[in-house]
Amino acid sequence: MQNDTIFGKIIRGEIPCTKVYEDDTCLAFLDINPQSKGHVLLIPKEQVGRIEYVPNELLQYLILKAKELIIAMKKTIPCDYVQLEIVGKDLPDHFHIHLIPRMESEHIPESEYKKYEDGEAVSYAQKISSGLH
Amino acid sequence: MQNDTIFGKIIRGEIPCTKVYEDDTCLAFLDINPQSKGHVLLIPKEQVGRIEYVPNELLQYLILKAKELIIAMKKTIPCDYVQLEIVGKDLPDHFHIHLIPRMESEHIPESEYKKYEDGEAVSYAQKISSGLH
Repeated sequence: MQNDTIFGKIIRGEIPCTKVYEDDTCLAFLDINPQSKGHVLLIPKEQVGRIEYVPNELLQYLILKAKELIIAMKKTIPCDYVQLEIVGKDLPDHFHIHLIPRMESEHIPESEYKKYEDGEAVSYAQKISSGLH
Repeated sequence: MQNDTIFGKIIRGEIPCTKVYEDDTCLAFLDINPQSKGHVLLIPKEQVGRIEYVPNELLQYLILKAKELIIAMKKTIPCDYVQLEIVGKDLPDHFHIHLIPRMESEHIPESEYKKYEDGEAVSYAQKISSGLH
């Protein structure tokens, strides 16, 4: 079955991309709507969906490639650090890792953070813990 | 040398935490300043700094544990998806992975995105590519 996501089309060259790295397993290219200049997307060539569906071996391959790319980005483009994000939404239905160059001066305002009610934090932790096999 | 970061103190129990998961290699607990309720921090017990300094085998272990935690979070707490973030700043000097439950209704406004000048995207891609060995 053909991969008709935007990433499938990029992999097949039907949609152009600004390539950063490619091998038999993965492709890294610049996001066309970058959160900052040099914002990279790293995707597997195999169509897999959200992280839950990425085979362990492939996920391990990609995280090491992401590490290599981050090292490369810090050496080569203006940034204080590189933020890795795996958003986890259902769409586009093709796993991808964001690598976003950042400056120290940026930050998420504390006002956007939430606060727990008494006992609520423990409850959340227990729920998550109970979901681990 | 003792790990005097906040995470070192949490691992030793000198600062309390709301634990989600623990094994010989890693610890997962709730962020006390959550971006959303159920926001988890996953850290290695060994003190290592930014992703660049995390040994490959440990990084591969942690990404699979993060995947397991995300599956658990989606099963157990109210969220449409879980966002994984590795911020990449120097401080605190102890590697950590954020797992943040999100709702589909949230999004980053496009107005915060940057645009490339002509040729600039290619230049960024080439720079990053040249930094890969």
